Amino acid sequence: MRIVVLAGGIGGARFLRGLQRAVPDADITVIGNTGDDIHLFGLKVCPDLDTVMYTLGGGINEEQGWGRAEETFHLKEELAAYGVGPDWFGLGDRDFATHIVRTQMLGAGYPLSAVTEALCDRWKPGVRLIPMSDDRVETHVAVTLPADDPTGPGERKVVHFQEYWVRLRASVPAEAIVPVGAEQAKPAPGVLEALAEADVVLFPPSNPVVSIGTILAVPGIREAIADAGVPVVGLSPIVGDAPVRGMADKVLAAVGVESTAAAVAEHYGSGLLDGWLVDTVDASAVERVESAGIRCRAVPLMMSDLEATARMAREALALAEEVRTS
Amino acid sequence: MRIVVLAGGIGGARFLRGLQRAVPDADITVIGNTGDDIHLFGLKVCPDLDTVMYTLGGGINEEQGWGRAEETFHLKEELAAYGVGPDWFGLGDRDFATHIVRTQMLGAGYPLSAVTEALCDRWKPGVRLIPMSDDRVETHVAVTLPADDPTGPGERKVVHFQEYWVRLRASVPAEAIVPVGAEQAKPAPGVLEALAEADVVLFPPSNPVVSIGTILAVPGIREAIADAGVPVVGLSPIVGDAPVRGMADKVLAAVGVESTAAAVAEHYGSGLLDGWLVDTVDASAVERVESAGIRCRAVPLMMSDLEATARMAREALALAEEVRTS
Repeated sequence: MRIVVLAGGIGGARFLRGLQRAVPDADITVIGNTGDDIHLFGLKVCPDLDTVMYTLGGGINEEQGWGRAEETFHLKEELAAYGVGPDWFGLGDRDFATHIVRTQMLGAGYPLSAVTEALCDRWKPGVRLIPMSDDRVETHVAVTLPADDPTGPGERKVVHFQEYWVRLRASVPAEAIVPVGAEQAKPAPGVLEALAEADVVLFPPSNPVVSIGTILAVPGIREAIADAGVPVVGLSPIVGDAPVRGMADKVLAAVGVESTAAAVAEHYGSGLLDGWLVDTVDASAVERVESAGIRCRAVPLMMSDLEATARMAREALALAEEVRTS
Repeated sequence: MRIVVLAGGIGGARFLRGLQRAVPDADITVIGNTGDDIHLFGLKVCPDLDTVMYTLGGGINEEQGWGRAEETFHLKEELAAYGVGPDWFGLGDRDFATHIVRTQMLGAGYPLSAVTEALCDRWKPGVRLIPMSDDRVETHVAVTLPADDPTGPGERKVVHFQEYWVRLRASVPAEAIVPVGAEQAKPAPGVLEALAEADVVLFPPSNPVVSIGTILAVPGIREAIADAGVPVVGLSPIVGDAPVRGMADKVLAAVGVESTAAAVAEHYGSGLLDGWLVDTVDASAVERVESAGIRCRAVPLMMSDLEATARMAREALALAEEVRTS
């Protein structure tokens, strides 16, 4: 079975681990979000790709869900001692190596997809991980900074998504979210081919706006999913009207979508999505989703451990099978 | 008193600490060797500048004489895990921050001299540290690789000085030593001015070929020292026919100079050097050096502790005064 998964960071990575447990023999291609990539200290940092790579490769800090296990932060301390910022992005000493290797390879002319493949040669994530695009796409967020913000109290400003998410902790509304560069970006080599050959496409409980939404903003990807003619099934990142983790509600508001499992399904739409899993606490949403033309089931959606996550993956594949044979 | 010191790495840095102890109120400008600079992992590394900066700024690893105190090597371990080399150059996690800040500033268009000044803003070495040049100079060494060398057994090859010094540990003869780029290099801003305003110029017991020799290879510096018309006094890095530390004998042989205190003085020559300190064990060399037209004294030259080093600095300044008033 050939499965293509569109993935953001922590939520996508953890779901993938469950999927691997559920179908160990499946051929899994992950199209990774690169819209939250950021240049820090002259280095190219790809947080979502790395979270997938580290998680599936056994190098992740399990507690926080991002960054490396057994990490130290001496380099970061020294950068702060030099007064060189930003200081709000948590790059560890081990993690830095990934960014240094990536930056050096990019500087030598390799595209991000080739670099990602080379990095995965070490981590052996058990999936084929492809960035959505080799072209630079950076999600920017228009905000009004908090009244006590040190960088410009009360100012209207467009900030990098990471600054909104990590430094500001989404404490102010996202007034607009723009994946800068997406319109000019081309899908990375392998993306369209993987979609064309897929038996099923899954949307894990990743952020529907700044993760999966950004991937879908790359021209050609949405069309390739539709053209594949295979079941497309998603899992709601919203459980009981709140994000399972992260601050998806903040960015959903920016695109005028309420933070409910049903609204997210409608946001994707029946033109894209064939099936949708909501949590059992949202069982009442099933009817609304199905009336929007999307097959829907209510099952437990908390990725509390690997087995629970594998069950979610099995439910998603079962729903895909139901779609296929209907 | 305005003192200009031409310095390499460990020997120069330790001497400078003694000089500061000897004359705390002196205005010291250090012209640092950049011929052993190297690009590693896309980062610009300046080992000699950093050794001076860390030593005088209190950040040095005292035991090894280079690198940072309380250092860890996680990033380097990870680079090795990625199979990205070289693995023979000991960059620590804290040290990496210096190279990242430097590389980022160079990339933004600042010259190395401005970058060095910015780095020193943090370390406050108590001297003005100027690279010999803002232009790229890299010392290369022609060697015949050892018969068991993994990179090319028995091959004739030109390697970067650091590869010769650190990876090969000078285990094969240096057949030629070339400061690539030196002929086209210009002294960094401040170098010629400092020499013109100096009251005395000192050569610490740094390597006469690949440290001080490289600085002197930058067109204009040797002339500026001669034109300054002030005493130029050096301290022998050779004690009892062997280098005090390092492998200076290997590179002296490459330029046809024997490893003796007297031969090094003659190598600099009376056109450059006015005074020369040899160790007491080399007292018999005094006559030969003086017959070459260079005033010479035999004094203890082991930098065994700060006070012993300060005494060496006082002897050098006393010899300079003797030259001045003669």
